[in-house]
Amino acid sequence: MCGIVGYIGDKQAQEVLLEGLSRLEYRGYDSAGIATIENGVIRVEKKKGRLKNLEDFLAKEPLAGNVGIGHTRWATHGVPSDVNAHPHCSLNNEIAVVHNGIIENYMALKEELIGLGHQFISDTDTEVIAHLLNELYTGDIVETIQMALKRLRGSYALGVLCANEPDKIIAVRKDSPLIVGLGQGENFIASDIPAILKYTKNVYLLDNGEMAILTKNDIKILNAKGETVNKEVFVVDWDPGDAEKGGYDHFMMKEMMEQPKAMNDAITGRCSGNSVSFSGLHLDSEMMKHINRIQIVACGTAYHAGMVGKYYFEKFARVSVEIEAASEYRYKNPIVDKNTLLIVISQSGETADTLAAIRLAKDKGAWVLAVTNVVGSSIAREAQDVIYTNAGPEIAVASTKAYVTQVGCMLLLASYLGQLNGKLGKNDAARLCHGLSITSGLIETVLDNQDKIKKFADANHEIYDLFYLGRGLDYCTCLEGSLKLKEISYIHSEAYAAGELKHGPIALIDEGTIVVAVCTQEHVFEKMLSNIKEVKARGAYVLAIVQQAHEEIASEVDEVWTIPNMDDDITPIPTVVYLQLLAYYLAVARDCDVDKPKNLAKSVTVE
Amino acid sequence: MCGIVGYIGDKQAQEVLLEGLSRLEYRGYDSAGIATIENGVIRVEKKKGRLKNLEDFLAKEPLAGNVGIGHTRWATHGVPSDVNAHPHCSLNNEIAVVHNGIIENYMALKEELIGLGHQFISDTDTEVIAHLLNELYTGDIVETIQMALKRLRGSYALGVLCANEPDKIIAVRKDSPLIVGLGQGENFIASDIPAILKYTKNVYLLDNGEMAILTKNDIKILNAKGETVNKEVFVVDWDPGDAEKGGYDHFMMKEMMEQPKAMNDAITGRCSGNSVSFSGLHLDSEMMKHINRIQIVACGTAYHAGMVGKYYFEKFARVSVEIEAASEYRYKNPIVDKNTLLIVISQSGETADTLAAIRLAKDKGAWVLAVTNVVGSSIAREAQDVIYTNAGPEIAVASTKAYVTQVGCMLLLASYLGQLNGKLGKNDAARLCHGLSITSGLIETVLDNQDKIKKFADANHEIYDLFYLGRGLDYCTCLEGSLKLKEISYIHSEAYAAGELKHGPIALIDEGTIVVAVCTQEHVFEKMLSNIKEVKARGAYVLAIVQQAHEEIASEVDEVWTIPNMDDDITPIPTVVYLQLLAYYLAVARDCDVDKPKNLAKSVTVE
Repeated sequence: MCGIVGYIGDKQAQEVLLEGLSRLEYRGYDSAGIATIENGVIRVEKKKGRLKNLEDFLAKEPLAGNVGIGHTRWATHGVPSDVNAHPHCSLNNEIAVVHNGIIENYMALKEELIGLGHQFISDTDTEVIAHLLNELYTGDIVETIQMALKRLRGSYALGVLCANEPDKIIAVRKDSPLIVGLGQGENFIASDIPAILKYTKNVYLLDNGEMAILTKNDIKILNAKGETVNKEVFVVDWDPGDAEKGGYDHFMMKEMMEQPKAMNDAITGRCSGNSVSFSGLHLDSEMMKHINRIQIVACGTAYHAGMVGKYYFEKFARVSVEIEAASEYRYKNPIVDKNTLLIVISQSGETADTLAAIRLAKDKGAWVLAVTNVVGSSIAREAQDVIYTNAGPEIAVASTKAYVTQVGCMLLLASYLGQLNGKLGKNDAARLCHGLSITSGLIETVLDNQDKIKKFADANHEIYDLFYLGRGLDYCTCLEGSLKLKEISYIHSEAYAAGELKHGPIALIDEGTIVVAVCTQEHVFEKMLSNIKEVKARGAYVLAIVQQAHEEIASEVDEVWTIPNMDDDITPIPTVVYLQLLAYYLAVARDCDVDKPKNLAKSVTVE
Repeated sequence: MCGIVGYIGDKQAQEVLLEGLSRLEYRGYDSAGIATIENGVIRVEKKKGRLKNLEDFLAKEPLAGNVGIGHTRWATHGVPSDVNAHPHCSLNNEIAVVHNGIIENYMALKEELIGLGHQFISDTDTEVIAHLLNELYTGDIVETIQMALKRLRGSYALGVLCANEPDKIIAVRKDSPLIVGLGQGENFIASDIPAILKYTKNVYLLDNGEMAILTKNDIKILNAKGETVNKEVFVVDWDPGDAEKGGYDHFMMKEMMEQPKAMNDAITGRCSGNSVSFSGLHLDSEMMKHINRIQIVACGTAYHAGMVGKYYFEKFARVSVEIEAASEYRYKNPIVDKNTLLIVISQSGETADTLAAIRLAKDKGAWVLAVTNVVGSSIAREAQDVIYTNAGPEIAVASTKAYVTQVGCMLLLASYLGQLNGKLGKNDAARLCHGLSITSGLIETVLDNQDKIKKFADANHEIYDLFYLGRGLDYCTCLEGSLKLKEISYIHSEAYAAGELKHGPIALIDEGTIVVAVCTQEHVFEKMLSNIKEVKARGAYVLAIVQQAHEEIASEVDEVWTIPNMDDDITPIPTVVYLQLLAYYLAVARDCDVDKPKNLAKSVTVE
């Protein structure tokens, strides 16, 4: 969260910065701001709210200059406001800073700097960096930053301008993402690739502790000790169009429509006949012999993919799996050792808590396998093994195609582990490979049902609560559907394991309360029917999602949506698409900003 | 859920049945009904809604007779209504039945019986039993019931009257609880002890498949094969006053106030100096050597106690623990074998899903240890080891004293396991024993703060949503607090692991949304502060619960409630009392029926 961009070259910096920020708005949109240097003077403009506010202002009163930094904010310390927006400057206006991350010792630093005469105008943690650099400035901004970093505790990606040294931008990162883009007679920094994809596909992926010194024609990288580093150029294989809406109203719709292709890309080359293989994976049957504990760690949507994974791993590889939210795992002295396989899942590959969990587990000797969408991301680099989901860039804050490909990869990985330890029979292996191979088409059949879903959403968009019920795999799908709805429509939805409903939450069911009952699992279908009767007896309006073979459920419920008949183990993939579309159309009917939901940001890079 | 009572003797049956039902209303209150036999004729009255409706009617038009059965219903099949209320009768009115449980094959039986000319008037599964008995009746109701049982699939506790045999009541159970009370010239049946505690303390605890034939002066027990069984008389050690409100407005308040005593009773004799012992427990260090997997299975509130348990077991015995809702566990082919220790938690000892989980795990060779409140309950009898929570009878649907004693027993058990496997050091053991020994007093300090809590509730009772945030142990407490609030106030509350908030749910935070931030854990206090800042930045009204040493948090939040400074590991016990009281006072301010919340019932004896 929070997006940084920086430019140095011959173009007007403002133009490049605004273009870049528009591609980073998914990382936060509480405020936006830019700073440029013109004739040796730093000028800053920043505005609360969406980038549009800043753009409108700058259209009338542009900032000139060929070097600059920009920022789009997701508020952590201090409310969204003009004054809390980045960039932040020293009082003498000679240093400007944009920051993504949290400075944990900012209170102590602030007191110290106030004691030294610095006046603070914002509530942010970031402002201490500007004052600290000002305090320590030696006439050499690189050296000054190196000194300042020794005082900072926490996480940061920083972009720094110095009025006395107007021919450079300094960038540095620790536990927050930052890349450097290489142009011809121009160079860039950014939090993420889409920000600069219009200008270059050649980037350096900065490692933790590395600093980049950008001039118009040169980029120098130093490590934490100040030694020069020779980085490899990473060539991005995305098409600039991948980060465009391509005719859809929202990125979320575009990305939902891309799911059949994404699923194919996730599976292609990994599943043939009745066996699964991952190119480049080190985990093999010899290593598997030593693994006596599997843990899955993830956050948010990826956590739900992990729950599906746990179900698959236990069923097909017959290994017990513990799953935990990364923010819980990392602070509880987890039981982990060299016989532990830690599987982490993260779309962006930059999720701060997940990254911390990796480091903790690696320190204790665990083998870490990451499932992520972003090649070259921090998580991809720090894990010992990586499976890419191949979903392509996901821009909408609410994750859709990343989720279905994560689930697909979980099933692939479960089959793979079952092969390695011999617990997965040939028939099951063939069945799962076949199942995966047709998921793409199954998703399409759900995507074809949008009229029905939109109609339901239009008729019911004024609800305040919504409940999802399911058992087993369906419960995982319900959790993800509920999160989607919360994220983009602000309807207070909740998902329950159907058997838990009457241990409390059924008290919330009233006449007309909508209950989405997901019933795709044959072995608990009768049990779901009993639970449906219980909520119907309390007046609920029940929308059931079932396989076609169970269309007869129509006599028991108020509305039925069907998926084609299929193997019960692959239903989570097409079923969740119904719930994504339901969330989407409810949000649109409620006039919500689907791609940029209130308070949220993609890629949670702070704890 | 659903309550059954039956009487045969010299008293007017109506009076005894209504008294008994009033003690069983916690098991359901969708409708109530009784049937008596007067001069060889069965007469039935039943009314939708609370027992009061039935009482008012019978006060004007009483049913005479000295033998009868009664029922209070929690609806599963068919809406709450007069016609769906029990008892259900055959069309010729010669047989009347009350039933707790679910007949799973009722659809098929119903069709068959309709084909034979029986007319159905209700939507219930129970009605098939009355018609089936009528169809099969041989002139001997005992023999007839034995034949009928062979046709029934599902769970049941049944009470049956037959007009041709007016000198007896027949009772039978399978997977639903039922006891028989022994009087002088009178006998009783009931779903639970409080129903008959006014009349007798001597009971038979029926086992699965057993049938009781009650006459005025005799009780005969048959097993499933029809052989006579000699049961031991179980003498209840409760005082009749235990099941009275004792001057409080609600059972829930009485039971919250009893928590200091309950906690003492849970600990007394089990914790001395620095070691823990449980009398009668078979689990010892030799057995512990073979245990390589611990699973916790529970439902609802008990599940939350299990989450605290998982935390304790992992921390103090350093064993990985899987926890799962019983309704999920039993349907997923869990990985369980003779090296598995299954720990189940259930207040009533009758929770249907939990009971099923025990049987499944025992079949696969696991060792089952139950933590329950009710001596002689099904779960206590079927587990190989039992730890009683000693909370005394809990009548309010929302569990309070049962929960804190469950948590206390979890900490005792964690210490015990840590002793057995040598992972718990002497210092830690002594620290935990000391901590437990003072919890009773700590709970009292929270109970002394009711004015403050009531004031907060009165000022904020019109809210629609409420969120709880915590990390680690505090997260477990939040889940339980949220469930309490849902159950009795119908406020849609939700608890989050604080680190997960910004992966989605923060979208629901608006200006003025109340967030209860539980921050009693020192090692994540700073992290909680960051999360509080994030929700404050979105306009939330934050109520923080902290240890006294962190009162300084007042400058960051809107309201602070403190617990005394204490060992971080025992905070879940006093902290949850704040959340119980908050739920209570919010519910009272909203004019909700605290002891009998909408749609809920205590003791979930159906799936």
